[in-house]
Amino acid sequence: MIFAPQQSDTRFADTTRLPSIKFLEEPTSDTWIEQAIAHLDTILLDHSHCERKAAANALNLMCRYPSDGPLLRELTRLAEEELEHFRQVNEILEERGIPLAPLNAPPYASQLKRQLRHNEPERKLDLLLVSGLIEARSHERLGLLATHLPEPDLAEFYRSLMASEARHYGIFWILATHEFPRDVVNRRLRELAQVESEILASLHPEPRIHS
Amino acid sequence: MIFAPQQSDTRFADTTRLPSIKFLEEPTSDTWIEQAIAHLDTILLDHSHCERKAAANALNLMCRYPSDGPLLRELTRLAEEELEHFRQVNEILEERGIPLAPLNAPPYASQLKRQLRHNEPERKLDLLLVSGLIEARSHERLGLLATHLPEPDLAEFYRSLMASEARHYGIFWILATHEFPRDVVNRRLRELAQVESEILASLHPEPRIHS
Ligand SMILES: [Fe+2]
Ligand SMILES: [Fe+2]
Ligand SMILES: [Fe+2]
Ligand SMILES: [Fe+2]
Repeated sequence: MIFAPQQSDTRFADTTRLPSIKFLEEPTSDTWIEQAIAHLDTILLDHSHCERKAAANALNLMCRYPSDGPLLRELTRLAEEELEHFRQVNEILEERGIPLAPLNAPPYASQLKRQLRHNEPERKLDLLLVSGLIEARSHERLGLLATHLPEPDLAEFYRSLMASEARHYGIFWILATHEFPRDVVNRRLRELAQVESEILASLHPEPRIHS
Repeated sequence: MIFAPQQSDTRFADTTRLPSIKFLEEPTSDTWIEQAIAHLDTILLDHSHCERKAAANALNLMCRYPSDGPLLRELTRLAEEELEHFRQVNEILEERGIPLAPLNAPPYASQLKRQLRHNEPERKLDLLLVSGLIEARSHERLGLLATHLPEPDLAEFYRSLMASEARHYGIFWILATHEFPRDVVNRRLRELAQVESEILASLHPEPRIHS
């Protein structure tokens, strides 16, 4: 049962207080966390970009589905939370003297985007599940930063984000299951999760949240 | 002096507590307010779309200029406020039993978009000024609703939005003058404001905030 609470995955149980939904097919490899810690300034900057993009993605979905009340309600709140995270990461960048700068996006999001089917209602299901997968992977990796970062303040900051990031992928899953039969959702999630893990199977050379 | 406080324009002085910046070339005609009051449900629905689009526009600008600290800071806050307005208008729609639905956009925004120059830094100036003009026109028209709506609750709601909408066009003007010489900003604003007023000179037949 892909959505059963995972007894073995209790890493974030304290902070999220949600049953762990198994979105991800494969966990992140140790090579990513080594890369991230070796290039922490770049990771922090990329994290800022990720929060902004997460808010923009929510707004895009809201513009695409302007009659879907539950989606508008949930994603308004989600976008507000991502903007709050964006502000928080930017404060950390400023404290550490890391200048704002553009960064090449890793291939992650564009490769996931290629999986989106073009016709409705399939496209909506795919958009919700891909958004959920990106949230789930962010949640996992921010959790790794919370666990492995040597600096206590920064580790604490990453722990503080865990609860809302876990709720975020739950929101996308709930929106999907409100509209599509649960077995359809599960089957498609498993396909997309497979691709998502394959994309990350070889570490992208530029350090990023989704390298 | 286009930016001198306008002694004659004291309509919103109480609510905005800002010197009135003369963004708009021509005031809205009485025909618009008559159309709006005759089709209030559609105007409320369109207002919801406008708030969502205002938040999305802020996010788009933030994604386009990811190294501009002041822009990111100001537009993060602006996007949060637009999301809050969006939530408030949607509550009013729900109370009044107006279903969420897509609406054809009036030609206003797409015609303004045609004025955007393609190369930087001109494009940035144009994006800021067009965003400011749309905010200024929204501010003016929401103010007309506040003044003319017969229902006291709804009029009060529109009054409550005035201060932040006035601040919004001020933000775009300040961002523009931080980066471009004031005479360049003023000259371009006057050109764009001329076009903006021409677009609205003939009332669009479908009732909209920007019809
Ligand atoms: Fe976030
Ligand atoms: Fe998130
Ligand atoms: Fe607004
Ligand atoms: Fe606004």
